[in-house]
Amino acid sequence: MSATVEETIQYASQESPDSPRRTVRVGICGLGTVGSGTVNVMSRNAAEITARCGRPVEIVQVGARRDNPACDTSQMQVSREIFDVATNPEVDILVELIGGTTVARELILTAIENGKHIVTANKALIAEHGNELFEAAASKGVTIAYEGAVAGGIPIIKSLREGLVGNRIQWLAGIINGTGNYILTEMREKGRTFEEALAQAQALGYAEADPTFDVEGIDAAHKLVIMASLAFRMPLAFDKVYTEGISGISIEDIRYADELGYRIKHLGIARGTEQGVELRVHPTLIPQRRLIASVNGVMNAVMVSGDAVGPTLYYGAGAGAEATASAVIADIVDVARTLEATPDQRVPLAGVAAGGQGQNCVLPMDEVVTSYYLRISAHDKPGVMSQVAKICSDQGISIEALIQHEPAEGEALVPVVILTSRAKEARLREAVSQIEALDTVEGEVVRIRVEPLG
Amino acid sequence: MSATVEETIQYASQESPDSPRRTVRVGICGLGTVGSGTVNVMSRNAAEITARCGRPVEIVQVGARRDNPACDTSQMQVSREIFDVATNPEVDILVELIGGTTVARELILTAIENGKHIVTANKALIAEHGNELFEAAASKGVTIAYEGAVAGGIPIIKSLREGLVGNRIQWLAGIINGTGNYILTEMREKGRTFEEALAQAQALGYAEADPTFDVEGIDAAHKLVIMASLAFRMPLAFDKVYTEGISGISIEDIRYADELGYRIKHLGIARGTEQGVELRVHPTLIPQRRLIASVNGVMNAVMVSGDAVGPTLYYGAGAGAEATASAVIADIVDVARTLEATPDQRVPLAGVAAGGQGQNCVLPMDEVVTSYYLRISAHDKPGVMSQVAKICSDQGISIEALIQHEPAEGEALVPVVILTSRAKEARLREAVSQIEALDTVEGEVVRIRVEPLG
Repeated sequence: MSATVEETIQYASQESPDSPRRTVRVGICGLGTVGSGTVNVMSRNAAEITARCGRPVEIVQVGARRDNPACDTSQMQVSREIFDVATNPEVDILVELIGGTTVARELILTAIENGKHIVTANKALIAEHGNELFEAAASKGVTIAYEGAVAGGIPIIKSLREGLVGNRIQWLAGIINGTGNYILTEMREKGRTFEEALAQAQALGYAEADPTFDVEGIDAAHKLVIMASLAFRMPLAFDKVYTEGISGISIEDIRYADELGYRIKHLGIARGTEQGVELRVHPTLIPQRRLIASVNGVMNAVMVSGDAVGPTLYYGAGAGAEATASAVIADIVDVARTLEATPDQRVPLAGVAAGGQGQNCVLPMDEVVTSYYLRISAHDKPGVMSQVAKICSDQGISIEALIQHEPAEGEALVPVVILTSRAKEARLREAVSQIEALDTVEGEVVRIRVEPLG
Repeated sequence: MSATVEETIQYASQESPDSPRRTVRVGICGLGTVGSGTVNVMSRNAAEITARCGRPVEIVQVGARRDNPACDTSQMQVSREIFDVATNPEVDILVELIGGTTVARELILTAIENGKHIVTANKALIAEHGNELFEAAASKGVTIAYEGAVAGGIPIIKSLREGLVGNRIQWLAGIINGTGNYILTEMREKGRTFEEALAQAQALGYAEADPTFDVEGIDAAHKLVIMASLAFRMPLAFDKVYTEGISGISIEDIRYADELGYRIKHLGIARGTEQGVELRVHPTLIPQRRLIASVNGVMNAVMVSGDAVGPTLYYGAGAGAEATASAVIADIVDVARTLEATPDQRVPLAGVAAGGQGQNCVLPMDEVVTSYYLRISAHDKPGVMSQVAKICSDQGISIEALIQHEPAEGEALVPVVILTSRAKEARLREAVSQIEALDTVEGEVVRIRVEPLG
């Protein structure tokens, strides 16, 4: 929607050099970790933010069920009813930091209905309801900014949507869950089991009491679909992400990966192919020499490869009060600067202007082609390797590398570790099920995908 | 300057949903590596670029003294006189890719005078004449975009100016010259001397016949002052950068650095202090565990640390036809999207709105505080170490680490390697000159600064 002529004239006159632009009025809903961080950073850096934005930006209202002693809201109008912020005519930008997908969705729809621009760090909401919210915002001529929803303070949304706009994105791959990366780092560096490392992450406050969301890849899937929608100009497709967690990763596999020149990381991967876009979150072996292989602890990093720019990487804190506040404030400044601009002068919500979104379908997982790390527990008998090689060969899969050590003292089973050539997921699964059916093989074959990221 | 009311009305009507926005007309000056890369990528990705920009963007004129067979300009109006592009009323955006600082400066000033927006990848021009050009652009209400001037395709200008806008930047440090980084990588990985590695870089086309610009840090200094001006809201201060090249780095020092847990990288560093901003380009020991220590070959990376976000890193190809074209096109799209916007709706030229630029002075090098790596050639006699320790101690410098191996067979001199505590440059220089005056010490002391980047 374009501004009316009257509005436009009013804006133009506001912007004459003689009358400074009016203060932009921000309402913040939610005073949890990110909410209080945002209040604190905006207060501390108010002068810088005004200078960079070209106009003052002020928090005029906070909506929160209770105060948070981590921040000072004594100079702000505080409402216990967050919907008051969504309907307050004195608010230009509503910043949604309450989390969740039900009340937050209603809050944002109400604010949009009342003509407010939206800034949010809510990845679940954007991933699951973004298509609906973007449509509502477009119909009211307002914008929704969501840099804080992916990878905390790393400006990855801006990089995808603006910085790399000249490229066809080929693929992106990210360590986008700090909890999972902390656990894998502890396992590798300190020889801890998954359970021990998880307990450590919980003790440090990096993991929730119920860690499912982080370790099973749901949080990473939320972030992945948001990035993929921008990279591949496609609607948000959270229900189509293939997701596999890290709870099955053992120290043994981390050690074998090291021996083969790889690290195991929990990656969110999106790749454009002729047949559709791959969308998958799973543990992945990546070559040690890739920069992203050295991203440790709770840090996040996203690799993006474009046809013109080649591989790029963006690294930083993926969570935390002030790191996420950094992204939220960048969004506030973007919106504030263009408050009076017409919608098509702003960066489009979904990365492309209306009608520009592609129909890219998501590639079914069976069709995805990758290499594989397999670990087989075999009886120490002649002929096992030739059986395994035959099964792989029949499926068009060749063996690129193999580790077989002598069995441990008194141990009847010997681990055989294989790196395969690239093969379709369906063929690999068939090969594995045949290998598992061999008399000479015990239990399940451990399977981890391998990505060169080159 | 704000748009007139008539103009504003015209723009508003253009943007109604019924009439699509008109094509943005680009004139490219210069058909060298980046110019031809830009023509190629814009042609190849035209559909994507239009979708992301929300309107068509077309190259309507090319100014170049000769054609470049690397790109097809047969569908474009080609002028042998580049100033024709600057005065062509059919051109909205002039893209300056001719390089150099004399004709390029005049070309841009002429284009600005004719009301055109500017996109340039010319780091020397922005670093040395940016203050003047920005003023000219501001007075005509047009913009100058220069993402391609720093670190090729990495969106570092956008990250500093927009993505991290909520932060007070504490420091930034970058590997921003691919040639130098290639040479240091070859020396470390293949045991080559500086001269051998340089010859190799020249053979591969990474280094010029006269490599001064790259290996002595002038190119890095250009890029550093551009980043520093955005990070610290200060005028461009190219003449105030301290610059030291890498031609004095020996394999011996690279090996000792390894032994101490460090890598030697040629960094551009800017740091805000109470007394002023440090601006320096020099070889630097950095801890091996920092991600940037693993950035090898011709790749670039910039670390930026902000008070809210903490340390972040941006990595990618720092040069090359299409990587730089990626940055140039991102700028073109930004300008095209906001072509009809008022100047204060655009991201300000120098990262801050008029009047927001600070008066930060550049800290004189004597006042800079860092740790140091020192390599001393000492006679293998008792008492040397106590003399050296006494001199350091008198200057308030303590010794944090020390390596002294036995002298080689038949060798009278033994290398003593020291890591010092943090000290002011002036005190360190005094200590070194006293050490060099010792009877027991031969020749000059090798000095390389150390940065924790933590």
